[in-house]
Amino acid sequence: MTENIYKLVELVGSSSESISDAIQNAIARASTTIRNVRWFEVVQIRGGVEDGAVAHYQVTLKIGFTLEEG
Amino acid sequence: MTENIYKLVELVGSSSESISDAIQNAIARASTTIRNVRWFEVVQIRGGVEDGAVAHYQVTLKIGFTLEEG
Amino acid sequence: MTENIYKLVELVGSSSESISDAIQNAIARASTTIRNVRWFEVVQIRGGVEDGAVAHYQVTLKIGFTLEEG
Amino acid sequence: MTENIYKLVELVGSSSESISDAIQNAIARASTTIRNVRWFEVVQIRGGVEDGAVAHYQVTLKIGFTLEEG
Amino acid sequence: MTENIYKLVELVGSSSESISDAIQNAIARASTTIRNVRWFEVVQIRGGVEDGAVAHYQVTLKIGFTLEEG
Amino acid sequence: MTENIYKLVELVGSSSESISDAIQNAIARASTTIRNVRWFEVVQIRGGVEDGAVAHYQVTLKIGFTLEEG
Amino acid sequence: MTENIYKLVELVGSSSESISDAIQNAIARASTTIRNVRWFEVVQIRGGVEDGAVAHYQVTLKIGFTLEEG
Amino acid sequence: MTENIYKLVELVGSSSESISDAIQNAIARASTTIRNVRWFEVVQIRGGVEDGAVAHYQVTLKIGFTLEEG
Amino acid sequence: MTENIYKLVELVGSSSESISDAIQNAIARASTTIRNVRWFEVVQIRGGVEDGAVAHYQVTLKIGFTLEEG
Amino acid sequence: MTENIYKLVELVGSSSESISDAIQNAIARASTTIRNVRWFEVVQIRGGVEDGAVAHYQVTLKIGFTLEEG
Amino acid sequence: MTENIYKLVELVGSSSESISDAIQNAIARASTTIRNVRWFEVVQIRGGVEDGAVAHYQVTLKIGFTLEEG
Amino acid sequence: MTENIYKLVELVGSSSESISDAIQNAIARASTTIRNVRWFEVVQIRGGVEDGAVAHYQVTLKIGFTLEEG
Repeated sequence: MTENIYKLVELVGSSSESISDAIQNAIARASTTIRNVRWFEVVQIRGGVEDGAVAHYQVTLKIGFTLEEG
Repeated sequence: MTENIYKLVELVGSSSESISDAIQNAIARASTTIRNVRWFEVVQIRGGVEDGAVAHYQVTLKIGFTLEEG
Repeated sequence: MTENIYKLVELVGSSSESISDAIQNAIARASTTIRNVRWFEVVQIRGGVEDGAVAHYQVTLKIGFTLEEG
Repeated sequence: MTENIYKLVELVGSSSESISDAIQNAIARASTTIRNVRWFEVVQIRGGVEDGAVAHYQVTLKIGFTLEEG
Repeated sequence: MTENIYKLVELVGSSSESISDAIQNAIARASTTIRNVRWFEVVQIRGGVEDGAVAHYQVTLKIGFTLEEG
Repeated sequence: MTENIYKLVELVGSSSESISDAIQNAIARASTTIRNVRWFEVVQIRGGVEDGAVAHYQVTLKIGFTLEEG
Repeated sequence: MTENIYKLVELVGSSSESISDAIQNAIARASTTIRNVRWFEVVQIRGGVEDGAVAHYQVTLKIGFTLEEG
Repeated sequence: MTENIYKLVELVGSSSESISDAIQNAIARASTTIRNVRWFEVVQIRGGVEDGAVAHYQVTLKIGFTLEEG
Repeated sequence: MTENIYKLVELVGSSSESISDAIQNAIARASTTIRNVRWFEVVQIRGGVEDGAVAHYQVTLKIGFTLEEG
Repeated sequence: MTENIYKLVELVGSSSESISDAIQNAIARASTTIRNVRWFEVVQIRGGVEDGAVAHYQVTLKIGFTLEEG
Repeated sequence: MTENIYKLVELVGSSSESISDAIQNAIARASTTIRNVRWFEVVQIRGGVEDGAVAHYQVTLKIGFTLEEG
Repeated sequence: MTENIYKLVELVGSSSESISDAIQNAIARASTTIRNVRWFEVVQIRGGVEDGAVAHYQVTLKIGFTLEEG
């Protein structure tokens, strides 16, 4: 692996479906404006509650991508 | 948002199905005795193993709710 | 519960399916060489990304098992 | 100090004024239903933003009080 | 283990005798008002000092108990 | 709340006045270039000292904002 | 900046007024016996409660100062 | 001390007697299969409760030992 | 409590007897050179092992004392 | 120091040479697109292994820079 | 990447030369008995002191390797 | 090892050369006024940046030494 430099940005994905879906949504959104997205790390899982049930999941995650030459 | 005061309680939900189900179970149980449940935060995900497979998921989570006037 | 002694090992399970599947894979693999696996604790959830979507989930977890008499 | 037993509850106080005011609000509310409140520990300071300015402060704090004989 | 739901409360036990005694005191007190206490987790060990010697131990611990059906 | 995606950036606000002022300064500056700023989370409070008194407060905080469609 | 060596000491300032005042009190006291105090880092904010209101704030902070040549 | 290499394993010792006894039990068991055990570090102290009293202490600890030449 | 200022120092007490004894040893030693020692907080419990048994306990603790007027 | 506002970004520098070189690489790359880089904080040191030797070091670090007027 | 399962072991490498050398020593030793070592993560850097100078560096690190089919 | 008592002080060493050099500088300085320095533990590695390159490394470390009889 050559001397790559990577950058990490922190996003919060949300979904009324599932934890995985919230992660997918964040990565999909990031990939619309960031190239070379390589990995993610979950920071926190939380969510909103309505009428005694989970209304949506909110997953805070760091997304790592390779920085192209400056 | 006016000067709301919220309280956090810590529950452990369990489920033989999935992580999300364990979260739902805890929130559903909390909502039977607590009004105005607003959000949850996952503290830890663990579980029991039997015969080389996950027997059940145990999710420790904090549940936040609005305190009504004292 | 008598004076059991337990040991914890740290594994990383991966799966292109889901977080739960990654956990199951790690426990299944551990159980092929370790007896009396009793519980697991999730340490970290991360994963790889390809073409703007989650390629696989990688879940770091500690697996606890009962040590038989020395 | 004799063998006191204390209990900790976790509240979130909010205030559009200041961090101290958010703490005071939480303690005042707790004291309406809890006797012998002795101390507090700040867990987290966060808040809401509207139109580029702090709308309100939200301070998560643990409040300790002496438990009376069971 | 069926879909139990557990609750965690945080107490501080104190004792002029020992750390274990402070833990026992907190659990004994909790059990006077809480049924089905199952486990404890030590959060912090501190204490007071008088005349160059430990006056009392104060152990902060979380106590877990099974919630009965709502 | 629909499937919003939020981004978190980390700023350090400083002020010779107060902790709250340092927070306000950071949020005001962020809002000049970022739309939909929704919340902040204090990460660390530190500061500089001159002649035995606080010269300025430096508050590290995460600022969350809603990402518009990609 | 040449090869300075700094030392960190940990103090707890208290004040019945405010968090900032508790910080100022600790730094003022430190500066009576320590030269070249350069910065502070807040470790914890807690306090005492009397009659349902904050009696005093107690701020634990690390204070950094430049060590003069040995 | 020459270029020793050490390994850390994580065990959970349990005892109905005391915290120290739980530590001793884990180290005794480890020493039946591991040579050159040098030190231990307590990671967590928890335990089981029955009838309002501590049934047993469970101490998670890391045990360090010198690795012999490969 | 007036505007006291406290200082925290970090010591490691050791004892071949017990954890409490290691704490007592550290506090006794501190009190020979420090006045107004008020409290202690355990930071870490570790120890040395010889011949498969605990040789000594080493308890790292912070000791808090009231600073007299500068 | 006037009311500066700083921003922190998180990069991962890599180098087959050394930890310091990985830090230098990340800072050099950041400085090609960011003005007023002032400081860095190491978050994590990890790396890749090939044929029983370190192939490259990967250092995650936060880089702080002064934000110019908005 | 197929459904690999990885294991993490925790070693302490030491060296009188440098931090990197201590890391290399630990990885070299691990590789004599473990196949497919893939990565390392530094957990802690400490060391021994003699006559006012660093006698040796001790680096605690987790070493990850691919588990072959059970 | 008899019932030694150790003390920990926290220093920040700096060096324009390297991380190890910053550690050495701190230990050398500590040893000019403290006897029986035994070990060090790195707490944080940070540094200053000038013109896109590392100007100096700043390593915060705890230094442990044996306390002589009171």
